Amino acid sequence: MNASKMTGQAIPTLIKVDPTKPAYEQKGIHNRWHDEIPAFVTVKPGDIFKLEAHEWTGGQIGNNDDSDDVRNVDLTRVHNLTGPVDVEGTEPGDVLVVDILDVQPFEEHPWGFTGIFERTNGGGLFATEFDSKAAKAIWDFKGIYATSRHIPGVRFAGCTHPGLIGTRPSKELLKEWNRREGKLIHDHKVDGQDPVPAVAFPPEPKGAYVGQDLPDEVKQRIYKEGARTIPGREHGGNVDIKNLSRGSRCYFPVFTKGAGLSFGDLHFSQGDGEMSFCGAIEMAGVVTLQVSVIKGGVDKFAMTMPIFLPSPVDPQYSARIIFEGISVNLHTDGEQKSMCATTAYKAAARNCISYLQKLGYTREQAYLLLSAAPVDSHVGSIVDSPNAAVSLSLPTAIFDRDILPQDAGLEKRDYGNAALRSDGVRGISE
Amino acid sequence: MNASKMTGQAIPTLIKVDPTKPAYEQKGIHNRWHDEIPAFVTVKPGDIFKLEAHEWTGGQIGNNDDSDDVRNVDLTRVHNLTGPVDVEGTEPGDVLVVDILDVQPFEEHPWGFTGIFERTNGGGLFATEFDSKAAKAIWDFKGIYATSRHIPGVRFAGCTHPGLIGTRPSKELLKEWNRREGKLIHDHKVDGQDPVPAVAFPPEPKGAYVGQDLPDEVKQRIYKEGARTIPGREHGGNVDIKNLSRGSRCYFPVFTKGAGLSFGDLHFSQGDGEMSFCGAIEMAGVVTLQVSVIKGGVDKFAMTMPIFLPSPVDPQYSARIIFEGISVNLHTDGEQKSMCATTAYKAAARNCISYLQKLGYTREQAYLLLSAAPVDSHVGSIVDSPNAAVSLSLPTAIFDRDILPQDAGLEKRDYGNAALRSDGVRGISE
Amino acid sequence: MNASKMTGQAIPTLIKVDPTKPAYEQKGIHNRWHDEIPAFVTVKPGDIFKLEAHEWTGGQIGNNDDSDDVRNVDLTRVHNLTGPVDVEGTEPGDVLVVDILDVQPFEEHPWGFTGIFERTNGGGLFATEFDSKAAKAIWDFKGIYATSRHIPGVRFAGCTHPGLIGTRPSKELLKEWNRREGKLIHDHKVDGQDPVPAVAFPPEPKGAYVGQDLPDEVKQRIYKEGARTIPGREHGGNVDIKNLSRGSRCYFPVFTKGAGLSFGDLHFSQGDGEMSFCGAIEMAGVVTLQVSVIKGGVDKFAMTMPIFLPSPVDPQYSARIIFEGISVNLHTDGEQKSMCATTAYKAAARNCISYLQKLGYTREQAYLLLSAAPVDSHVGSIVDSPNAAVSLSLPTAIFDRDILPQDAGLEKRDYGNAALRSDGVRGISE
Amino acid sequence: MNASKMTGQAIPTLIKVDPTKPAYEQKGIHNRWHDEIPAFVTVKPGDIFKLEAHEWTGGQIGNNDDSDDVRNVDLTRVHNLTGPVDVEGTEPGDVLVVDILDVQPFEEHPWGFTGIFERTNGGGLFATEFDSKAAKAIWDFKGIYATSRHIPGVRFAGCTHPGLIGTRPSKELLKEWNRREGKLIHDHKVDGQDPVPAVAFPPEPKGAYVGQDLPDEVKQRIYKEGARTIPGREHGGNVDIKNLSRGSRCYFPVFTKGAGLSFGDLHFSQGDGEMSFCGAIEMAGVVTLQVSVIKGGVDKFAMTMPIFLPSPVDPQYSARIIFEGISVNLHTDGEQKSMCATTAYKAAARNCISYLQKLGYTREQAYLLLSAAPVDSHVGSIVDSPNAAVSLSLPTAIFDRDILPQDAGLEKRDYGNAALRSDGVRGISE
Repeated sequence: MNASKMTGQAIPTLIKVDPTKPAYEQKGIHNRWHDEIPAFVTVKPGDIFKLEAHEWTGGQIGNNDDSDDVRNVDLTRVHNLTGPVDVEGTEPGDVLVVDILDVQPFEEHPWGFTGIFERTNGGGLFATEFDSKAAKAIWDFKGIYATSRHIPGVRFAGCTHPGLIGTRPSKELLKEWNRREGKLIHDHKVDGQDPVPAVAFPPEPKGAYVGQDLPDEVKQRIYKEGARTIPGREHGGNVDIKNLSRGSRCYFPVFTKGAGLSFGDLHFSQGDGEMSFCGAIEMAGVVTLQVSVIKGGVDKFAMTMPIFLPSPVDPQYSARIIFEGISVNLHTDGEQKSMCATTAYKAAARNCISYLQKLGYTREQAYLLLSAAPVDSHVGSIVDSPNAAVSLSLPTAIFDRDILPQDAGLEKRDYGNAALRSDGVRGISE
Repeated sequence: MNASKMTGQAIPTLIKVDPTKPAYEQKGIHNRWHDEIPAFVTVKPGDIFKLEAHEWTGGQIGNNDDSDDVRNVDLTRVHNLTGPVDVEGTEPGDVLVVDILDVQPFEEHPWGFTGIFERTNGGGLFATEFDSKAAKAIWDFKGIYATSRHIPGVRFAGCTHPGLIGTRPSKELLKEWNRREGKLIHDHKVDGQDPVPAVAFPPEPKGAYVGQDLPDEVKQRIYKEGARTIPGREHGGNVDIKNLSRGSRCYFPVFTKGAGLSFGDLHFSQGDGEMSFCGAIEMAGVVTLQVSVIKGGVDKFAMTMPIFLPSPVDPQYSARIIFEGISVNLHTDGEQKSMCATTAYKAAARNCISYLQKLGYTREQAYLLLSAAPVDSHVGSIVDSPNAAVSLSLPTAIFDRDILPQDAGLEKRDYGNAALRSDGVRGISE
Repeated sequence: MNASKMTGQAIPTLIKVDPTKPAYEQKGIHNRWHDEIPAFVTVKPGDIFKLEAHEWTGGQIGNNDDSDDVRNVDLTRVHNLTGPVDVEGTEPGDVLVVDILDVQPFEEHPWGFTGIFERTNGGGLFATEFDSKAAKAIWDFKGIYATSRHIPGVRFAGCTHPGLIGTRPSKELLKEWNRREGKLIHDHKVDGQDPVPAVAFPPEPKGAYVGQDLPDEVKQRIYKEGARTIPGREHGGNVDIKNLSRGSRCYFPVFTKGAGLSFGDLHFSQGDGEMSFCGAIEMAGVVTLQVSVIKGGVDKFAMTMPIFLPSPVDPQYSARIIFEGISVNLHTDGEQKSMCATTAYKAAARNCISYLQKLGYTREQAYLLLSAAPVDSHVGSIVDSPNAAVSLSLPTAIFDRDILPQDAGLEKRDYGNAALRSDGVRGISE
Repeated sequence: MNASKMTGQAIPTLIKVDPTKPAYEQKGIHNRWHDEIPAFVTVKPGDIFKLEAHEWTGGQIGNNDDSDDVRNVDLTRVHNLTGPVDVEGTEPGDVLVVDILDVQPFEEHPWGFTGIFERTNGGGLFATEFDSKAAKAIWDFKGIYATSRHIPGVRFAGCTHPGLIGTRPSKELLKEWNRREGKLIHDHKVDGQDPVPAVAFPPEPKGAYVGQDLPDEVKQRIYKEGARTIPGREHGGNVDIKNLSRGSRCYFPVFTKGAGLSFGDLHFSQGDGEMSFCGAIEMAGVVTLQVSVIKGGVDKFAMTMPIFLPSPVDPQYSARIIFEGISVNLHTDGEQKSMCATTAYKAAARNCISYLQKLGYTREQAYLLLSAAPVDSHVGSIVDSPNAAVSLSLPTAIFDRDILPQDAGLEKRDYGNAALRSDGVRGISE
């Protein structure tokens, strides 16, 4: 008896990525949506496999203590997606069932970042109100938990997920995206100028990348027509829904032969809303997927967008403190909006940020924390004209002290600050 | 040994309401917000007490099988609120802590209703898209559960809560509400006409009621200036957040001496969003409250709106199916909105309604069900221009069959229909 | 328009109980199990109805501040059960499906008690180790919560349930109970004497009561043969499983025609194990039930005991501190037991009690609190010879301060004590 | 801009294990508890590190389709523990705080096994009742989920944890273990023979291993006196509590200088009780730990055994079906035990096994499944003489069909069988 019977076979990794090299030097990565980007790999229904992914900027952000890299990020190069993966026998109108079996950071790179982007380069929910200047927090991954030297006093369990996952659009769908978003951009021009921050991102050849050897004319067409990856759309895409997490099952509508699944923008954790734009804890890493197909599923389930089933291992924090907001600019000009859930979300977020400031966190820290931590935001009501009500709930157990309201008020501690610009420039004073 | 030692003292009921009589015949009920409505009762910090409440329409809707009462509802008479309750020693700038210890329907009236209101009389989230005609569902309360003869095949645990609870506004706050909402109404006029449905509701003397003997000039001022109760505002009010439920603790900003707490619009259950307008399961009943005060709490906690802590007994349904929506009118004209969470919520809701129709529910039933059942709606992301992503999650265990996607599609059953108008008129055909 | 449309029909109450009168003066109450106790009321499958219940001692314990009533309690008179209720068409071998739709205290009596019983009169888990003397805590019900003037610093949500609910035994089953329990009593006699506390309770005519007019010879037979109600058995009975709570669905084996459902021993809350014997928060109150029948269910589901489905509204406290125990008398003589989960439970409980004493609670308070609060106890492992491992988990959010281990140790506060004997006699010093 | 800024530093792995080689050929592995086994590695408070572990048998069980390896397993060689790890500055009476940050299978070996052991070689809860013969199930790890070709129709999320983790015993503590367990063995001898299965395992030089170069006389003393690793004890050890999972925080009493933490017996998942003895899903893998120290913590927290805080990512399955058991041998001779929670657990387990057999699972499959799946077992009551009540709850969502009781009974499917002995011998017929 000299040999162990412990043998095994790892789940195959179909696309490998080297996160220490720029994304645009690597195969199997693309950063535009287009019907002519062919499968980089093809699998069969029932297959289980792994795919690696770069972090969304493709390696532009470093594990350091200033935010200059965030300030200067090149957004024409994002998001860097792994894929496409085609599934044999899949046709338009089918549903691609994707089990997101696991999502892990690279073992050699147990860290991620959350960023506040400049008002003029990326923006974010409060880009204008705060006149946002670049700031960031680096998070260390300690097993299932994240902590940050830039936001002391908190630790929370990750809800790892791809912020972005979706199927290849058809030519028609792509055209529709470009039409409607182009119209939006056109309609928001003031004196012929685009607003800052932008309302949408039109196709942009600069920075476009397909990660495959394709005929040059195809590449040029993709670069010129390819939809940008910023928003979520009918195929999924960058919906940034934190509960599309490891253990979830997703049903995607299929628009092209083979389905063409791509994903990226891996998050270790994210708050509902991902408010600071690059608000999740962004990371590079590995996903494990299993795929199958439901023929004709789009019609069977009346789908215009993906459906999913959440995971049984999403972090559970039952004790929470909840803030409210309504469709009024409560923190600025007092303007009454008409049933605007976005305004209500912003008001709730501002209330929570102000509360965290009473505890001693700076506005940058609070903004980053709410973006990254397992914060839930519910649409409370959306019919009580003129005010939608939105709530934002903060798990209390992620703090190393009791943060509930006390008769004596909240004890203000010194938590330092987030990583800021090396020139010291911050947004509007708090 | 002949006597039981079982003795006790019930918690006192400070305001009694007879739900079999119209609200406007009873004392301790009011339906406008105004700083000059004095306390109907006064309590001390630490007191525990009960208060009864009419259902929000004050008795206009019956337990029957047509929706004519919904069609004809008089909305100038809503919401019928119980109060105000003053708390001794409370001043502007304080925080009123309210423990919502219990919320129960009247034992003699174990039923409630959910209504789709007419496009021209109340509206609702899809008033225009569906050209909504009145429909309703009557729910029977069976202990902690509700079932409806108008929506067979579902049963769910209630999350009983006051849809509306808040403190008395100061004169300044009331003025500000009237200013900003008046401006909104003004700005939305088309050719001098108000849109249908309305964007907001200005003060309206018709139907106004204070439930107390007050000097006539005071009454007239209240009728003329009093804010309508439809929306939630800085003081709480009709936020319709389902998690302000029995067992929750709420922190309200205080704007006037005594605080002046009023509440009403009791719900047996509600889905996030309460989409059909009268979408919760509306009921009359009893709340049990305990109150205390944090001096100067508004500043201590940087409050512009209430804060609350959720209840440990909110119904827990971990298995869910989740639908998504983005800021595009996916089901109508395909218009691209700019980062509009309301549009995204609507898209997710439409996707879920369509799914339920595949199971055999009519559009009215699906619309009512999503409004009333313990549906969660999360703001997924709100920074990915131009699309916010909103999710809507349906607990699967409330159905008496497996509703998850199947390879063979969904089995369509005959569930009859909701209670409709006696003249048979319905909205736009499905 | 002068009339409210709010009409309704209360769920009928089939058996009414007056808790201010002794149980043995009232109809529809019995305190023995016997096949010849006929239905007090009969219902049909599908019926929804209410039944009232006395607290388990039938009124022997008062809302006061000493434990003399506990010391002197007459245990031949317990438990006082409401019923039996027969369900039409039900036969032996069927399964009675019981939806426990709600469980509420009487509105006029919003309080309950938890007792430590004397070693020589009732006992409890640590009767011998502690040489238990009577002690108790009175709990006030504040909506869904309970607090006690005898155990300051805690508040928790109730998990209301009948500690005791079961079907009428057949003659054969009753005979088997008496056989096996008689043998146990016989085998535990030492020098012809019963041990103290008792290992089981044989039929006892003294104190027996049927709550109906029956022929005297039948009564005498019931008194002489009727099984005592202390333990749970194949029919359910006093299993004291806290999760048979409002909202749960229970499947009971049927042994006699009509099923003969009886219940009692209502608890506002209980910890797993109910360690102090009368460890739950005992109360009088009302249950709402719905019944149906599955023909031949006992064989269909291979049942020897009830099966149940838990409620979605059981209190949820995710943050917990957990104590462990093994099959060794760690706190007394160090004896090693063989795979004894009971010993392991006791060791875990002692560890938790000791921890609570470090916080300042007396041993009586800690013992009562663990009996009454939503404590969970899991069988960790039961195969690692010779030690079973049992865990006991305490929800941390029920305390008004942070009770987790701190570097500096635990702050000891003065919490007074439980209600004790008026003669001041307590058990073995701590 | 040619370089990615993605850099990182992996958490260091302090002890590496090769699972493809037998455990007894490797350093840093030991399989006895003894005060003279020195630290294999030493860390500082605050350190984060990884440690690898063999599966508990050290490689004796293979990924194949018969159970002969289980039949022949050499139990003198178990458990194979990684360690000891000393923590600088730690002394007896301190508390070692261990954050179990993650527990993962080896990436190359994504599988594990659950075994029923022979009555005469290991046993298990029903060794005697079933006259157990070896059987096993191989589980494939698919990200967070496990499935088995030997138990079709189920899939569940893992709750990965070390079944065994504890500190080095002092000489005195070791002596006490050997005393009390020796006495138990002695007292259970019948005619001078040990019972089968054994009640406890005395020190056994055969198979003993320390994984370090030590003076021969020390080794011999360890082999001769070293406590076997089967049971949990005061230091933790093999408590097999499934909630000591990734994300949990554990407080261990320290008995020797440096603390001497060792662990092993990694489980991908386990049911409460781990009833089939080798009932968890056994695996080899990697843990990530962070350690700190509370000086004098044993006294501060009155500890006789470890305390722990559960993880926020333990799998959550709210829908369950629950079986009950009491202290009566309901499935065999009907013997009444006195307040025996172990008997009650067994009765509940038998009821659940019988239910699963009605669904088509064989007894071996059911026994293995309940051992391995996220089954909860609660001590319901432990004071209702003579019957303790224990419940066993099965999550319904782990099955690929609805398993709840139906009026028509349960549909019996053909699920094949577990991996059995190649000679076809099984236990007592079902």
